[in-house]
Amino acid sequence: MHFADNLIGLVKKGKTPICIGLDPHFKNLPKFILKRKTKEFGKTTKAIAEAIIEFNIGIIESVKETVVAIKPQFAFYEIWGHEGIRALEETCKYAKENSDLIIIGDGKRNDIGSTAEAYAEAYLSNKPFGLQTNSYHCDSLTVSPYLGSDGINPFVKNCIKNEKGIFVLVKTSNLSSGEFQDLIVGEELLHEKVAYAVSNWGLADIGESGFSSIGAVVGATYPEEIKSLRSLMPAQIFLIPGYGAQGGSIADIKPAFYKGKTGAIVNSSRGIIFAYQKLDKFTEENYKEAAYEAILAMQKEMKILD
Amino acid sequence: MHFADNLIGLVKKGKTPICIGLDPHFKNLPKFILKRKTKEFGKTTKAIAEAIIEFNIGIIESVKETVVAIKPQFAFYEIWGHEGIRALEETCKYAKENSDLIIIGDGKRNDIGSTAEAYAEAYLSNKPFGLQTNSYHCDSLTVSPYLGSDGINPFVKNCIKNEKGIFVLVKTSNLSSGEFQDLIVGEELLHEKVAYAVSNWGLADIGESGFSSIGAVVGATYPEEIKSLRSLMPAQIFLIPGYGAQGGSIADIKPAFYKGKTGAIVNSSRGIIFAYQKLDKFTEENYKEAAYEAILAMQKEMKILD
Repeated sequence: MHFADNLIGLVKKGKTPICIGLDPHFKNLPKFILKRKTKEFGKTTKAIAEAIIEFNIGIIESVKETVVAIKPQFAFYEIWGHEGIRALEETCKYAKENSDLIIIGDGKRNDIGSTAEAYAEAYLSNKPFGLQTNSYHCDSLTVSPYLGSDGINPFVKNCIKNEKGIFVLVKTSNLSSGEFQDLIVGEELLHEKVAYAVSNWGLADIGESGFSSIGAVVGATYPEEIKSLRSLMPAQIFLIPGYGAQGGSIADIKPAFYKGKTGAIVNSSRGIIFAYQKLDKFTEENYKEAAYEAILAMQKEMKILD
Repeated sequence: MHFADNLIGLVKKGKTPICIGLDPHFKNLPKFILKRKTKEFGKTTKAIAEAIIEFNIGIIESVKETVVAIKPQFAFYEIWGHEGIRALEETCKYAKENSDLIIIGDGKRNDIGSTAEAYAEAYLSNKPFGLQTNSYHCDSLTVSPYLGSDGINPFVKNCIKNEKGIFVLVKTSNLSSGEFQDLIVGEELLHEKVAYAVSNWGLADIGESGFSSIGAVVGATYPEEIKSLRSLMPAQIFLIPGYGAQGGSIADIKPAFYKGKTGAIVNSSRGIIFAYQKLDKFTEENYKEAAYEAILAMQKEMKILD
């Protein structure tokens, strides 16, 4: 099914447009899992990878009926080399086989020509270069726009061909995002120029839902920009980071949504997966229950979107 | 040793400032290696990974006395999942243990906060998060600037701490690079604004050679821009893609160099590693000799820089 139609369909069926960031930061992984795996596999990257897989599966199980998407942040897997990438593969494979969760690979990839093609084949194909070897099971990928169309077209091509999606960085959630993204270009800001481009790229693959498989990353920390970007990119699904830990609230991101909570998904990472560290009544052994409770709280906050 | 001092030192010792792009595109890998590995490991990603490792080691052996750096393009490893990443690790490990080649990880990574830190620890640390698990053996990494300082500072910090380097995308070699990079911002172009930022970030880590560990990616396909960017970034080492296959010549990139061929390294990927496909007298079995001959031709062209 068309990537955007699938995502919007899940929201219409009643799932909450939340994306859970699977950022298994080593320092925050529950110690009881790490200890058990270290006992089994020694002080190795394999032990860390196995701990990440178990932890992620626990999170997936506790969120899969409620939220729309998961977003593994590649950095936290790459850091452990090939064992980390195996953990990424196993995580996505588990989610694909045991849920209808949409998998957003957060790699912010960007390159040109045959290299962008290779990235597109890696993450947005089920048979890279025609070979039966798909490892990542991603439904979509975040990408960075600095190189222009050459760096985006190969991804768009694979979105159309393989019913996949991308989210292009437009206005990021961080403090310094304005350094380049808010520079004034003629009558507009740079991120608005990028937004026009994203809207145009997106015309090539609009689904029956009216939404495009070419989405945009727009930070919850810039509410004014969300409003203007919504009008510049009417057919884009917004992937919204920056909620919670970074300071954005649901009220801030309301303008990103259309009726029926469609048009955007809000990401939360630490706030959900490591909720056990924040909520006194939980210990690390209850990380799944803590994650679920944190989601219920977020769901409640999102009622203002109805 | 300081990253830039090491690189410049190798050039002063007589090595040619060439960077060999290790982009082992599946379609171009010598069939005789692929066949042998497939026979041993079946039609698996492991077979492809083993073929890449053998091919890369052959290239490294034929170039290591002549050129300064190798640049594995991560896309061509990531596409094969964890086996591909193992091939990346093994390639870099071999180069580190058997040569003085500088390893430039071409990942064009970009992210913020704890994520950029994780990338920096992954690629620019010998002990990620203090653990003895370094897998990649990279000396440096290419990074993308769209997120501003937040996305760059964690890398700069690791450059200083661990004597590593980065190359920030400033003006890329592709046709559409101007779509955003050449937008007019006040009196300047966007890529010039980025150049100022790179120059400023670089002040934090200038070596005895006068060069910074914070370098810049500037495409050979834009000779006029190379000239102006050289004056905006006097202390940056330029990593120059776009020579050869993409159309840039050595005459085009001359303004990037200071006396004694210092200040820049020119990348060539396909033109060297798959030279066996272009030069009639070679068969795929002679890919190493073909690569060496292609380098000698490139070296000859570079005489105009003396």
